[in-house]
Amino acid sequence: MRDSAKSISSSSPDMSRDIVISVDAMGGDQGPGAVVSGLFMSAKKNPRIRFILNGDQAVLSPLVTKRGLSDICEIRHAEEVITMDDKPSHAMRNGKNTSMWHTVDAVRDKQAHAAVSCGNTGALMAISMLRLRKAPGVYRPAIAILWPSKNPSGFNVMLDVGADIRADAPDLLKYALMGASYARNGFNIKKPRVGLLNVGTEEHKGRPELHEANDLISETFDTTDFEYVGFIEGNDIPSDKIDVIVTDGFTGNIALKTGEGTVNLIAGAMRDSFKATLLSRLSALFAMTSLKRLSRRIDPRRKNGGVFLGLNGTVVKSHGAADATGISAAIKLAFQLAEMNFDEKLAARVASATSDGETIKK
Amino acid sequence: MRDSAKSISSSSPDMSRDIVISVDAMGGDQGPGAVVSGLFMSAKKNPRIRFILNGDQAVLSPLVTKRGLSDICEIRHAEEVITMDDKPSHAMRNGKNTSMWHTVDAVRDKQAHAAVSCGNTGALMAISMLRLRKAPGVYRPAIAILWPSKNPSGFNVMLDVGADIRADAPDLLKYALMGASYARNGFNIKKPRVGLLNVGTEEHKGRPELHEANDLISETFDTTDFEYVGFIEGNDIPSDKIDVIVTDGFTGNIALKTGEGTVNLIAGAMRDSFKATLLSRLSALFAMTSLKRLSRRIDPRRKNGGVFLGLNGTVVKSHGAADATGISAAIKLAFQLAEMNFDEKLAARVASATSDGETIKK
Repeated sequence: MRDSAKSISSSSPDMSRDIVISVDAMGGDQGPGAVVSGLFMSAKKNPRIRFILNGDQAVLSPLVTKRGLSDICEIRHAEEVITMDDKPSHAMRNGKNTSMWHTVDAVRDKQAHAAVSCGNTGALMAISMLRLRKAPGVYRPAIAILWPSKNPSGFNVMLDVGADIRADAPDLLKYALMGASYARNGFNIKKPRVGLLNVGTEEHKGRPELHEANDLISETFDTTDFEYVGFIEGNDIPSDKIDVIVTDGFTGNIALKTGEGTVNLIAGAMRDSFKATLLSRLSALFAMTSLKRLSRRIDPRRKNGGVFLGLNGTVVKSHGAADATGISAAIKLAFQLAEMNFDEKLAARVASATSDGETIKK
Repeated sequence: MRDSAKSISSSSPDMSRDIVISVDAMGGDQGPGAVVSGLFMSAKKNPRIRFILNGDQAVLSPLVTKRGLSDICEIRHAEEVITMDDKPSHAMRNGKNTSMWHTVDAVRDKQAHAAVSCGNTGALMAISMLRLRKAPGVYRPAIAILWPSKNPSGFNVMLDVGADIRADAPDLLKYALMGASYARNGFNIKKPRVGLLNVGTEEHKGRPELHEANDLISETFDTTDFEYVGFIEGNDIPSDKIDVIVTDGFTGNIALKTGEGTVNLIAGAMRDSFKATLLSRLSALFAMTSLKRLSRRIDPRRKNGGVFLGLNGTVVKSHGAADATGISAAIKLAFQLAEMNFDEKLAARVASATSDGETIKK
């Protein structure tokens, strides 16, 4: 990807030397100011990073100048913004002049290595699928997030958490391959252990498509470098029995948000119980610090971003409410994935596995 | 139900005066000793309770005698036991001589008002459906549990958490009616607020059967005494926006176990962080107490039992690992439901609502 790139103009980023991240300045709840602050944080730590910043030029120019980012940040003006309420179908039909569309198109046109947005997730997936197209062999792309776990890395990979509300057996196999590739490349886990989320670990339990997927993944994983542990249950998601959790986007999204809700409930209950005495107020200082850290970890979009897997290009979805630190973390993830040519490695992995298995139609 | 009952023998419980609970002595992880201890705890607090205890007579007789329960507890010998590994289909075909089957049959034969078991959930549901039959208008019975929440009662009702892996729109409507009836009768909530679990609150999101159910419940709830708040998300489950969460058994089971896994992860992380200093060790005393309480609350099977809704008779499933306190809590729940003739109230509610709505076929 990087080899075929060339400078767009004298002020454009040099893709042959640097990593260029295309950023949607307009999508987040905290506005363009937080996004530019995130760029500033990333640039301070990483001299090889360059940006294409998409959004309202009049708003962005003074922010970029003030932060001293003019040399490494090209602003691309976009008239319009996709809101959190816009339907994905609406965004696909009418989004051409939005900052989100421009952000994705910079990757499509090989002017940037990866895209980052904190805007509307559904719209971002729809525009990414339309503009980048699905990778060969992938029928349903997925959103992968990191779930805090008891593993040494501190995280498990879970997908899909909401790209598509359904997944058939061949899709779930692709999720297993893509999730394992993400764990291997992104977190240096040589032979990731993959589990398929179900309502029981016994072979007779669960939905028919899960039984079919169980067979399909069992047959395939011999030829690949991951280990398939079979069915897992909801309480195994944060365990150290697996590195990758495979599920459909409906179930994954419910699980993710149930986890968030549980953390919030506990945090609230802890706050109440810590109000009781002076000593408990002191103890709260310790407990709340741990809880806040954990609360940030359980919502990995905030810390790391959700990665869209199965497209011809890397797109990272940052949390809508992300502050400068959150945006900088999403940018870092995009940088790392771009630097290792992750999307090409992933495509190669899916293509090789699916050509081995004659049963896979999609 | 109570009126039609008569004494089976001179030593049998008198159903016209007392509440008789049929208990499976053999199903739990902790063995018959814990079950009989649970009976003892319940009997101490409640003079109106009587038991039919099903299981191995040779094991149970000395335990019942030792606890001084002979006068209020009839032992019914059962040769066999259903294990946690038995498939529901196997239990239905071959379970006739098991303690679980006998436990349910006492309700079927109107010798007991309600049944309690801590055995295999799938087998208990299968046997209960076979022996008690589904209530009129109910196509898929459901398991309802209590989820800790920010509501004044401290709990929300959630169903189905695993009776059936799928639910169509008419089933979800029945779950709404049954869940509301449970919240109203069991927890004195005059007009329970019911939400339908989905991946977003917007009307265009989620699976087709959820859209259909949304329309169906919206049309029906005018004629009933609950309030329908529409779609809710995973993070709303423990909230005070709703009293009842309606979902299919697959999604409900994943959510329940994800909540449990999250609590366990947090408890572990808290333990680690509290090891740091002397002061933090002190603070741990407070925090761990709250966490343990919360951990017990998040697994409401342990505290209260899951209730099978939509059958001709009341069955309470206690947690498999329940100790005497847990079993006593499940017995208390069964007693309360039996005392208020809950299964008849529920059946009347479902029948009246379904005869009003012409759209409901099941």
